[in-house]
This record gives sequence, structure tokens and C-alpha cells, in this order.
Amino acid sequence: MSKPEIRIAIDCMGGDIGLPVTVPAAHQFAKQNPDTRLLLAGNAAAIEAALKGLADLGRQWYEILPASEVVTMDDSVEIALRRKKDSSMRVAAQAVKDGRADACVSAGNTGAWMAISRYVLKTLDGIDRPAIATSIPNQKGGATTMLDLGANVDCTAEHLLQFAIMGSALASTVDRHERPTIGLLNIGEEVIKGNEVVKQAAELLRSSGLNFYGNVEGDDICKGTVDVVVCDGFVGNVVLKSIEGLAKMVAAMMRAEFTRDALSMAAGVLAKPVLDRFRDRVDNRRYNGAALLGLRGIVIKSHGSADAYAFGYALQRARDAVRKGLLEGTASAIDRLRQSLQAAAVQSAELANDVSDPAP
Amino acid sequence: MSKPEIRIAIDCMGGDIGLPVTVPAAHQFAKQNPDTRLLLAGNAAAIEAALKGLADLGRQWYEILPASEVVTMDDSVEIALRRKKDSSMRVAAQAVKDGRADACVSAGNTGAWMAISRYVLKTLDGIDRPAIATSIPNQKGGATTMLDLGANVDCTAEHLLQFAIMGSALASTVDRHERPTIGLLNIGEEVIKGNEVVKQAAELLRSSGLNFYGNVEGDDICKGTVDVVVCDGFVGNVVLKSIEGLAKMVAAMMRAEFTRDALSMAAGVLAKPVLDRFRDRVDNRRYNGAALLGLRGIVIKSHGSADAYAFGYALQRARDAVRKGLLEGTASAIDRLRQSLQAAAVQSAELANDVSDPAP
Repeated sequence: MSKPEIRIAIDCMGGDIGLPVTVPAAHQFAKQNPDTRLLLAGNAAAIEAALKGLADLGRQWYEILPASEVVTMDDSVEIALRRKKDSSMRVAAQAVKDGRADACVSAGNTGAWMAISRYVLKTLDGIDRPAIATSIPNQKGGATTMLDLGANVDCTAEHLLQFAIMGSALASTVDRHERPTIGLLNIGEEVIKGNEVVKQAAELLRSSGLNFYGNVEGDDICKGTVDVVVCDGFVGNVVLKSIEGLAKMVAAMMRAEFTRDALSMAAGVLAKPVLDRFRDRVDNRRYNGAALLGLRGIVIKSHGSADAYAFGYALQRARDAVRKGLLEGTASAIDRLRQSLQAAAVQSAELANDVSDPAP
Repeated sequence: MSKPEIRIAIDCMGGDIGLPVTVPAAHQFAKQNPDTRLLLAGNAAAIEAALKGLADLGRQWYEILPASEVVTMDDSVEIALRRKKDSSMRVAAQAVKDGRADACVSAGNTGAWMAISRYVLKTLDGIDRPAIATSIPNQKGGATTMLDLGANVDCTAEHLLQFAIMGSALASTVDRHERPTIGLLNIGEEVIKGNEVVKQAAELLRSSGLNFYGNVEGDDICKGTVDVVVCDGFVGNVVLKSIEGLAKMVAAMMRAEFTRDALSMAAGVLAKPVLDRFRDRVDNRRYNGAALLGLRGIVIKSHGSADAYAFGYALQRARDAVRKGLLEGTASAIDRLRQSLQAAAVQSAELANDVSDPAP
């Protein structure tokens, strides 16, 4: 029996560029992954046009899911959700809901994508709020999973615990870390160590049965001190964008120095293979594809400015999540936590009985 | 008449290394800045020993302020403040309080340094909470001032407004930015734009009379979109350490690629002048020296791991702050804000009168 096909629905209209990125990326991805079938959501005529000229893959690698509307990068959640009910985003998420696709991917407006996929797919039992998680390359040569990156601004300690469960499930299934270590992002040696929510979350994490490492600081993300870094969406979003900003600045400064004068340019030519290797290692396109966790379906968000190369990585992340059982992994992680909490409750009840009942 | 001398008190015992860093750095600094006199706080015999062998500068460039105790990097604020009343930190801050020094510098434990300098010097009128500010190099070739970096974890909108006033005063006096632009660190296009405190702070900033640019995102720090980025101490601390972590990773990867094999090493030798220039530009030692703002005295915090070169920059920052009138600048910025708030109150009262009193 052949392996079951993996079906990924793609919002072909989303992102800063849209079709000229999504369709060629889908084609290239299908070529490299013959076990995949792609459901292309969007304006059918425009998709057909974008498909023209792409090489025949010798199989029916795609199917078009017609959608008459497009959520723009500036549309509010309200508009995206209530006024554009036949958007390519909505159609892609609906394909997962209907069991026609195993995962869906969009490079569109993050807020809209989160709202639509949450509305269509609903959250998993035991999860109040979905979270956005991504991988950040670290000094150990691996990647650190970080969440939440902006879905939730004001979080309680319980929310941070839920993020830890989802992040742990992502790292153990997709990245194959056995019992991933979890770090809680906090501040270090400064005046006051952490706010109240973080302190409470640390308490919850200590008794959660997860592999809780303890508090980590900002520099631990790139050091790779832990497999998963948990924080609220405000902090995560600001941190992610700050390090992206620094990476861009470093790249720009490097370019500037190697093109400053003839001698520097000559040095640049000679050092090119080394600089290329360096660039490959820090190329964040290879880490494109954030996971919207906590939903009853696999939902991936590509960077809005992704090119076809980067978008391919987001598709790869969707395929990996399906193949490696992210959904089942998350559900069973939630179950395990529940059991360990129940066991703890039973134990403390028994303890209370032991104390109150005098020994015979 | 000769220019008045600038007197800087130095906690010579503080930091990861202490005397072998602080004393040679002080000597080198005094050599380069003949208008400076340094007050070396710490164990007198140990300071004398560290001074041995340093070249004579042909003037009395230093004075020793004996202190019998040392605040360690692990000491709690409680211990530093209540149990070590004759620490080199305390003696350095006291020198400013007594008018014997114009500024004080320590590379010791941040929490302790903040608590001691606050206890000894008190806060300026109109400032509830001091804040920690530093400069981060940006793509425009300048530096972005960012605060708070960890002194205050749970902040109100009013606190953020006070940080903006202090940051604006720092940028206008020390960095000579005329009417510095202020950005409020927030999250972008994601689901929910900012938490309640940030939204309220934006309102306050809009009517503050400061040059408020609006919200900025994490990547704007290195882009140099605004002169001053304001955030709470939790976010600021995590962001600063995250970008420090990425910078270290990039440097390590670069080293690894240029030493991978004989060919790469040869390329590294040829590209050395370019790589050195690049390294100089991103060398964060040149940005050492965070300012503890909002106190009745100039207080600078050096990185704990600073070497003598980096510690010299912290001393430079202290000298600049004195010479360029940071304290007076901050006090008058607070006054200006008060006046503009009063004017606004008068205006709205008049407006209320106009409305309630029917026209004659």
C-alpha cells in the first residue's frame, strides 16, 4: 500500500506579493515532494494564469479551490471575518475543516489568518487561546522554538502554561526533541526579577510534568539554552522583530564594508564562498513558517514578504507537521497534563485524609 | 579662567573583574581627558597596588575614597543596601550626594547599584521611578536610546510617559538631537495591537508636548526610526539581551566559517581589514555605559563583563553627561511638561467655562 497523500491548502492570494510567489513555490514544492497534493485557494483564472508555463509534473499535483475575495494586508479582523466570507484564506481553512486538506498555509495578514482559522477550526479542548510559534536558529546549530509571537497580548499564568504545552508538543513531534526543555522568558539580574504573571507561571510549570528548565533571559534564545522559550505575545513579537532588525542591520553593514572600495571588493570576491556559507547559516528564509498552535487543524503562517524560496519552507513546515503528527502530539500532551494534574489532586486529597483520619 | 574640572567617582571593586579593569581604565581615561579628576572608591591598599606601574600623568588625577565593603554580583538589594553600608558602590554614590563628584560609575550588580544610588541621591521632582537607558547602534550610523532596560517591571502609562521625558532629555543633551523623536515600543500587524498600558501611554504622549512619533516595532530599534524608544523594563531587558545574544551568535558563526579550513583562513586573512572595520562598527563595547535616569545626580552603569576598553566608554558617558548638562536638561524637560500640562488644564477649564457660560 502506498503512503497516504499529504494535502495542503494554500491561500494563493495572501502576502505582500501573492500569486507570483505562492504558485511557483507550490509547483516547486510538489516537484520535490511527490507525496503531496496542493489545494490552491484563490481566483481560479488568476491561478490558472500563474500556472501557465510551469513544467508538467506528470501527475495531478494540484486542485483549485475557487475563492472570490482576498483579505488584504490592511484589512481589519472584523472585515476579514465578517465581510469577506469567500476569501482565499477562509476557503483554505475551510478545506482543513472539511477534511479535504491536512494543513493550510497563508502569507497574508497575521491577525486575519489567526481569526479566520480560529473561527473555522476552533481551539483544541483544554486550550483557551491559540498561539503563534516559530523557530529561531541558535548557536548550537539547531533552532529554538519560541511562542507566543503576537496572538495574545495580556496573558495569565495559565495561558503561559498552555503555550508551554503546545510548544513542547511542537518541539517533540516536528523537531523530534525528546522531552523538550522549556524556558520561561524573564529578566535577569536586574532590580526586580520578573512580573507577577511570570512568577505564577513558573510555579505552574514546575508542577506541570513538562521538562521545565526554569527562567531564561533574552540571550538564551540564540544560545539555545532550552528547546522552547515561552513568553506573552507582546514580548515575543517585539523580541522577534528586534532580532530580525539587528540581523538586517548586520547584513547591510557587511555589504557596505565589502563594497566600500576596490580593495574591499576584491577581498569580498576572495571571501565569497565563506561569506555565502555564513549567509546560508543565518538566512532566516529557511526558518519561514510560524505555526498557529492550539487549533483543530494544522495552520501555518508564512512571512508576508516571503519569496518563493522562503514560502517553500512554510509549505515544508506544514508537511512536516502533518507527517510527524503535530495535532495528535498536542492533544496527547494536553491529556498527559490533565492526568498529572488529576493525580496531583488525588494525592493531595489522600494526604489531607491521612492527616484528618487518625491512625487506627 | 580654566574650565572647571569634571570629577567622576568610580566604584573600583564592582563588576565581574573589578580592580584589574577599573583602575587601568580610569588611568587611561584620565590621560585622555586632562579636565577630569577621578575618585577611586574601594579598598585603599588594593587600589594603591593596582595603581603601581601605571605611568605618571604629571598631575594629581585621582583621589582614593576608602570603602571597606564590596557588593558582589550575587548580593540581594537588601544585603547591598542594609548590610553593606560602607561598600565601594555606596561611597561612590555618596561622593555625588556630597558634591564631591559630578557623576558616579559602577560595573557592579545592577539591582544593587540602582537601589543604592536611588537611596542615596533620591529621585528628581516629578519622577516616580528611575529608569535605565542605553544606546543601541542603528543602521543610520547613529544610536537609538532605549529605556527602561530592567529597573521597572510593571509600569503604568504615567511611568512610560516619565521614561519618555527622561529619554528625550538624554538624547537632546548628551546626543545633541534637537527635539528627539520618541517611539513607543508596540507590536504591529498582529491580532491585538498593544496592551492597555501602551494604548494609554500613547494618549499621554500625544498631548505631552514631546516630539512623539507614535508606535514603533522591534525592528525600528536597529532601523533608527526614532531617537528614543520607550518600553517597560521587562520588555526592554529581554529585547536588549536578545539582540546581544544574536550579535554574539553572528560573531561566533563568522569566526567558525573563516576558520573552517585552510582556504577559508586564507580568505579571512585577505579580508581582515574589511572584517575589522565591520567588527568595529558592531562592537558593543563602544556603547557601554547605561544611564540611571531620574536621580538627583549622574549615575552610570557599566556592563559587568566590561574590559578596560569598554569601561572607558562608560567613563566617557559619565563625562559627557556632566559636560553637556544632562541633569539640568532633565529637570527643565520635566518643568516644560508640567507647564504644558497646566496650560492644557487651563485651556480645557476655559473651554468648559465658555460652554457653561452662555455668550452675552
